[in-house]
Amino acid sequence: MKMIDIIYKKRNGEILTKEEINYFIHGYNEERVPDYQMSALLMAIYYKGMNKTETVNLTNAIIDSGDIIDLSLINGLKVDKHSTGGVGDKTTIALGALVAANNVPVAKLSGRGLGHTGGTIDKLEAIPGFSADLSIEKFADQVNKINISLGGQTKDLAPADKKLYALRDVTATIDNISLIASSVMSKKLASGADRIVLDVKTGSGAFMKDIDEAFALGKAMVDIGNGVGKDTVAIITDMEQPLGNTIGNGIEVWEAIQLLKGKAPEDLLELCRYLGSYMLLLAEKVSTLEEGMKEIQEVIDNGKALEVFKTFIKCQGGEIHYIDKPELLYKTKYVYEYTAIKDGYIHQLDAELIGKCALTLGAGRLEKSTEIDHKVGLELQKKIGNYVKKGDIIVKIYYNEKRKLDEALKLFEKSLVLSDEFKAARKIIHGVVTKEGEKRLS
Amino acid sequence: MKMIDIIYKKRNGEILTKEEINYFIHGYNEERVPDYQMSALLMAIYYKGMNKTETVNLTNAIIDSGDIIDLSLINGLKVDKHSTGGVGDKTTIALGALVAANNVPVAKLSGRGLGHTGGTIDKLEAIPGFSADLSIEKFADQVNKINISLGGQTKDLAPADKKLYALRDVTATIDNISLIASSVMSKKLASGADRIVLDVKTGSGAFMKDIDEAFALGKAMVDIGNGVGKDTVAIITDMEQPLGNTIGNGIEVWEAIQLLKGKAPEDLLELCRYLGSYMLLLAEKVSTLEEGMKEIQEVIDNGKALEVFKTFIKCQGGEIHYIDKPELLYKTKYVYEYTAIKDGYIHQLDAELIGKCALTLGAGRLEKSTEIDHKVGLELQKKIGNYVKKGDIIVKIYYNEKRKLDEALKLFEKSLVLSDEFKAARKIIHGVVTKEGEKRLS
Repeated sequence: MKMIDIIYKKRNGEILTKEEINYFIHGYNEERVPDYQMSALLMAIYYKGMNKTETVNLTNAIIDSGDIIDLSLINGLKVDKHSTGGVGDKTTIALGALVAANNVPVAKLSGRGLGHTGGTIDKLEAIPGFSADLSIEKFADQVNKINISLGGQTKDLAPADKKLYALRDVTATIDNISLIASSVMSKKLASGADRIVLDVKTGSGAFMKDIDEAFALGKAMVDIGNGVGKDTVAIITDMEQPLGNTIGNGIEVWEAIQLLKGKAPEDLLELCRYLGSYMLLLAEKVSTLEEGMKEIQEVIDNGKALEVFKTFIKCQGGEIHYIDKPELLYKTKYVYEYTAIKDGYIHQLDAELIGKCALTLGAGRLEKSTEIDHKVGLELQKKIGNYVKKGDIIVKIYYNEKRKLDEALKLFEKSLVLSDEFKAARKIIHGVVTKEGEKRLS
Repeated sequence: MKMIDIIYKKRNGEILTKEEINYFIHGYNEERVPDYQMSALLMAIYYKGMNKTETVNLTNAIIDSGDIIDLSLINGLKVDKHSTGGVGDKTTIALGALVAANNVPVAKLSGRGLGHTGGTIDKLEAIPGFSADLSIEKFADQVNKINISLGGQTKDLAPADKKLYALRDVTATIDNISLIASSVMSKKLASGADRIVLDVKTGSGAFMKDIDEAFALGKAMVDIGNGVGKDTVAIITDMEQPLGNTIGNGIEVWEAIQLLKGKAPEDLLELCRYLGSYMLLLAEKVSTLEEGMKEIQEVIDNGKALEVFKTFIKCQGGEIHYIDKPELLYKTKYVYEYTAIKDGYIHQLDAELIGKCALTLGAGRLEKSTEIDHKVGLELQKKIGNYVKKGDIIVKIYYNEKRKLDEALKLFEKSLVLSDEFKAARKIIHGVVTKEGEKRLS
């Protein structure tokens, strides 16, 4: 087998065999296939695409390039949730407790984040003492005992994906559905989950700006999951404006705790109910979406979810009094209240720019080595569709370094559009893709 | 300017500016742009193409990557002829004398060949003593005195083309008209000619297997030449079977000399008359194609062309008695006469396979360091459309090493198809592309 023949074949629009896909992925991972041939092939894939079978084979080849986590020590069906990434997305934190409180095992392995805010581990580390540094035995043992555990990814999962992504990034071959889908799914599937709920974000703050593209990506990922025999569902959700009211690390944990206490903003609650219900469905705990939503609401109302969350944090070394007084999680030196300069309806709160605003304050990292400031963040007082009078507070900015405020304010101002005309916020759930097909809700 | 932005732009089908094209060619030539970005861009160009302006700018950027030869020491309009490469193509040798005998300066700079037979210099070196190792002053002086000179390329012409070609070869991005046209024309234009006649071959022995593709390539090259202000004409000619009757080095020089003596096969004579006439036209020596053809025939008939050829060979150190007895040029140890195994019409003499047959005998080189055997070669006794009886000689094979004959015979046998039905050979001239447009003749 020769790489040049594989490039010719895809260039001419032909379908690659499993053997050919294995050849170039393993060859590239082991540095037998050079960058310049891989990038030519990626560009050919960009134009000619890959069909369902090719995409499944690509995903499997990427999985096989590294370790695969074995969760068989954990009893029951393990359902994982994965988001394609959004601004203010604290659902993983809340969902863990909501699902575990329904006696479904939550065995979550997470990496650290690169971007506007940290990853789930970074966020929970805002709680002093909390650690995700567990052995696989302790991790499994904890799930078996209290239904929930959060571990750091220590194994070398899908190393070919890291190399491919770095190459795609510099050769204009990022935005191809098959390449994106196999990248996401290879990492998920290598993490050992039995079933997967995907939250595919769409809108200004998401990778997929366009709703149709988000459905296409959702479909490609559902096809991969089901193609390898792991039931997968994709929920297409909105990311025109940040999710909930907070953006940061500690402040997002605070909002997740508020949700468990029954005090969450409606968009966040609706999304958690929806995703949580699908997790219960895939775990075969409930048999209808409605039943699942009821169960999720119930563990909020009866306090079970909050109790599970406390036990979980305590088990992993976190100081419990922060859960009783979660406002300590975003106690910064300074607070700036940004007010409306005129009367009007909020027309736009560009999620991407608000994400950059949080990053500027120190809530995220662009490089792996950067230290995160867990306390800084934003708290929106108004969202799209709300009416404000001149002088009303639109956002509270929590910050620790004065010199960073100016740049953050500029970004926030750029994100905001006030208008005389009313505009409703988009629905939070745009639709669902299952192996049976897609259902649009917006 | 960033390479990634240029890749995105072309990937999305946009037109690249002159500055962008200069950026990536010079960046690549100077190793600031890495192979993997260049190959992604080449694949995007493969799919999205380049328009006329982009192709001219690409050619100019490649020319600017190296030296440009200055022929201003030579009086008059310098017309160069270039062939895209075929089997048995000895036209350059004959045409030099035919055009120079018409008082048009022929200042030919040539490289050594890679492939089935040698380049023009390799072929003429079959004449003992002949050397193309001239200083640019001596080269120019000789043209001014006797109208003709052949020099070796000593300067570093279009180095970016060499690098690009090597990359295209391993990334399946060879066969794009703009990339091929700019590659050929950059080398030609850097060689300093004022006007250019291109011989674009089409058929089994040519790079362009398809006639329409050959016309498209001709048009792209004519557009480039005229785009940089150098009158260029492309003649689309046949390469289904070898040109003339001989394939080799000394044996091709012999056939070129036979032509100058008025004893050439019809296809070779017709092509030389046609190409020569266009050279006289571009040199403004004649005003119609017919007049040019008449002038070319006249210098054959009156012996002037042969005389010029002798003077030229003498000036460059060659032993003149080889021109009087040119059969010495292919005097090998052994001759094998391949005969027809049945009666029938010759249906096919695959040019590419016959080229490989000559290469096997030692007539060409695959690597620069290989020594050529100037005397080995093939002499066809029959061509497509001829009828043979069982036992008739189809080809004489001249060879020096017994062990090479078997492989050569296998290749020749594979090239040959005998049939009960008559098939005419294709016309030698398929058409012409000038700046006014194309004219098809077949």
